[in-house]
Amino acid sequence: MITNDTICAISTAPGSAAIALIRITGSKAYDICNNIFLPANKKKELQKEPANSLIFGTIKDKESKRDIDEVILSLFRAPHSFTGEDIIEIACHGAPFIQNEIVNLLIKNGARLAQPGEFTQRAFINGKMDLSQAEAVADLIASQSESSRKVAFQQMKGGISSELLTLREKLLWFISMVELELDFSEEDVEFADRNELQNLVAEIKEHLDRLVNSFTLGNAIKHGIPVAIVGHTNAGKSTLLNTLLNEEKAIVSEIHGTTRDAIEDVINIEGVTFRFIDTAGIRETTDKIENLGIKLTYDKIKKAQIVLLLADVNDPDNKIQEAISQVSEKIDFKNQQLIVVINKSDLLTKEKIEKRFSTPAYKELKEKVSAIITVSAKYHNNINLLIEELLKTVNLNAINQNEVIVTNARHYEALSNALESIIRVEEGLENEISGDFLAQDIREVLHYLGSITGQISTDEILGNIFKNFCIGK
Amino acid sequence: MITNDTICAISTAPGSAAIALIRITGSKAYDICNNIFLPANKKKELQKEPANSLIFGTIKDKESKRDIDEVILSLFRAPHSFTGEDIIEIACHGAPFIQNEIVNLLIKNGARLAQPGEFTQRAFINGKMDLSQAEAVADLIASQSESSRKVAFQQMKGGISSELLTLREKLLWFISMVELELDFSEEDVEFADRNELQNLVAEIKEHLDRLVNSFTLGNAIKHGIPVAIVGHTNAGKSTLLNTLLNEEKAIVSEIHGTTRDAIEDVINIEGVTFRFIDTAGIRETTDKIENLGIKLTYDKIKKAQIVLLLADVNDPDNKIQEAISQVSEKIDFKNQQLIVVINKSDLLTKEKIEKRFSTPAYKELKEKVSAIITVSAKYHNNINLLIEELLKTVNLNAINQNEVIVTNARHYEALSNALESIIRVEEGLENEISGDFLAQDIREVLHYLGSITGQISTDEILGNIFKNFCIGK
Repeated sequence: MITNDTICAISTAPGSAAIALIRITGSKAYDICNNIFLPANKKKELQKEPANSLIFGTIKDKESKRDIDEVILSLFRAPHSFTGEDIIEIACHGAPFIQNEIVNLLIKNGARLAQPGEFTQRAFINGKMDLSQAEAVADLIASQSESSRKVAFQQMKGGISSELLTLREKLLWFISMVELELDFSEEDVEFADRNELQNLVAEIKEHLDRLVNSFTLGNAIKHGIPVAIVGHTNAGKSTLLNTLLNEEKAIVSEIHGTTRDAIEDVINIEGVTFRFIDTAGIRETTDKIENLGIKLTYDKIKKAQIVLLLADVNDPDNKIQEAISQVSEKIDFKNQQLIVVINKSDLLTKEKIEKRFSTPAYKELKEKVSAIITVSAKYHNNINLLIEELLKTVNLNAINQNEVIVTNARHYEALSNALESIIRVEEGLENEISGDFLAQDIREVLHYLGSITGQISTDEILGNIFKNFCIGK
Repeated sequence: MITNDTICAISTAPGSAAIALIRITGSKAYDICNNIFLPANKKKELQKEPANSLIFGTIKDKESKRDIDEVILSLFRAPHSFTGEDIIEIACHGAPFIQNEIVNLLIKNGARLAQPGEFTQRAFINGKMDLSQAEAVADLIASQSESSRKVAFQQMKGGISSELLTLREKLLWFISMVELELDFSEEDVEFADRNELQNLVAEIKEHLDRLVNSFTLGNAIKHGIPVAIVGHTNAGKSTLLNTLLNEEKAIVSEIHGTTRDAIEDVINIEGVTFRFIDTAGIRETTDKIENLGIKLTYDKIKKAQIVLLLADVNDPDNKIQEAISQVSEKIDFKNQQLIVVINKSDLLTKEKIEKRFSTPAYKELKEKVSAIITVSAKYHNNINLLIEELLKTVNLNAINQNEVIVTNARHYEALSNALESIIRVEEGLENEISGDFLAQDIREVLHYLGSITGQISTDEILGNIFKNFCIGK
């Protein structure tokens, strides 16, 4: 990839709008714009205008003598810009036709159309941010909830980087001591106090362990927490979803799920995204097609973090209890939650409900599942209890206290590898293995940690990261 | 409508993107932004920064102590801004979630969500542009071809305004003379030389006439030239459309037409938009459903400016000739063009084609229609001739020579009314009617001309104009 030419792209969303932004970065940004821009104030010269200033004028195709549009340019100068290079942003009228005309004109005058993420890649190459921060830029743009925005923003501001930097620095001191020993190996000295080192390794292991474990939460925050809804349509699924929406003034959207034909309801509740996955029923059957439906239901249950079993207060007790038992069998209670929601509670009095659901049979089931809640989706009764249960799966404290949370699968993999290596270091220290083996394991830890922040990277890794960015960023 | 509060809106297209722009205008723009913005350079103060400068920092909800996003603000100050008021533009990361958070924060701090077109309306109210220029802003944003962009841009730069201003000034001098006469009516003096006035009125009439007549072209440029394609599917309609596309490297898009279920192919050819409307066949039939299809075809022919009758060189001559005659009957040759395209010419030699289509029967038909062209859509033969014929309907010279072209139906109506009134003035002068009647007709002309530029306007007119703008402009 060429990284020193001048690139341009439309940076705002496609479509017709009041304003669109076209971005140019590179050493020739000013020369190229000077060729196609005429300041309204004829005394002004683009190249002599101060950095971080705005200038009004006309985009002109000097060759065909056409005025294309009246625009405002934002002028940034290297190294004090997003990419670290000269940047000009053209704010034009937001007709797609005009946006394309200006981009074509820029290309005709020597710019190249930017690849996805190429602006951010330049920021990384020019040392304006490390790799994990660059990745956070994409996460921030993709964020759909307060928690995902918050975690991405924190990472972009260097959250995980600073944590890893500290760990890495400690390890570097560690390895320099061990390697010093190797230089003096014939003299059998120990520059690195093994007890101190053991403490350090334990500390690093604890850090890595916490980061690796945070990925479950991080992944849920980033992609939404999958909630499988099991139950018959007449149990009031859509009313319940609508009620959750209204109660939370939540944003709802229908997104195409990872499977080709699944459409999910996505609801933000207190800043956390939940992906509600509808499933077929659960009753046992001999019918072949029905069986297929049931298999699909169980597949979806397997992928969910929360299973919401929805029953109707009109259902007879044995039917409800059987459903709970049946679903419980399919659930991994270590990693999954089963919430039983009995809807239409408005059809019974409070006393009758209390009496009905405090029988020994229900009490026994209650101990198995996370909660049995009676609600009236229609009259918004006890919805707050359901929301509480849903939010219990998310460690909101961790988010609110700005703890570093890993959301990126690449980071998770590197951290897991680093953890494995640090455990080998720990074992090595216990077994008093020789310094060169120790050094090798430490080097591995350093490698994995360095790959997250990009101190160690390959073109392939960079290519994979930036190809998923949007154009213009 | 309140016009002195501070308003805000997202000005870029909806959806996820690298960057989004949020715009705030009004006297409190700086106070409100100061409440939610923390400059990265702590020494800087938003309110003391120079106009037309950029400032980097963080959007912060000071109440909940949340950092929302890192942004760049563009600072404009009254009266040197688009609206003539203080304006701040916030360039944030383009996640819809973040855009909404920032807008909500602005509203919480005292801004109001802008109505469609409210920014431009303020520019009009504050005298930054006249009404026809404001309308051109919306046209520019909606422009889909070079010709529509060009005409809108010219109007935004004051094309029609300056033409009308000149006419209006001449008329104002005229009426002041006539009214002076009325003051001295008992003395029977003539301050306004009737011959000179007659020349002036003739000149104005000619101007108005030209402007009114330009609307046919203007309307075609703005909305695209409707081309009804008549002919059977196997005559190669889609190959022909694709060939036109490739030949012209034209932009194609499918838009929903004005009728609910009609989808049109829109192709830009040499900067002019053509809307190709597919129709059913044309042969006479007794079948009821077929008859309905034929009625629809004739309805579409009526609305088209060009009718393109597509035949297959394999069709027998009598079938082709009959089709031409049949369609000709339905065409108003004064306002419509019939182009006969005989496709698949590659199936015959050039000599055979020449011989076949120079029979007396074809010669007679050729005189009736605009052109009979044999083409091969597949092998791109003679497509240039077809393009020539299509472009004949458009007066490209008028566009290229920057003549003022009326594209706006409201302007057309006002100009037509002004033309009617000026004709009455002309007749009045011929019939030597009294000064007060003359003055009344002149006042009407002044009224209609003033309504175009907005010197005369009502809240209702303004409401109708700006409600069709996009939000954020």
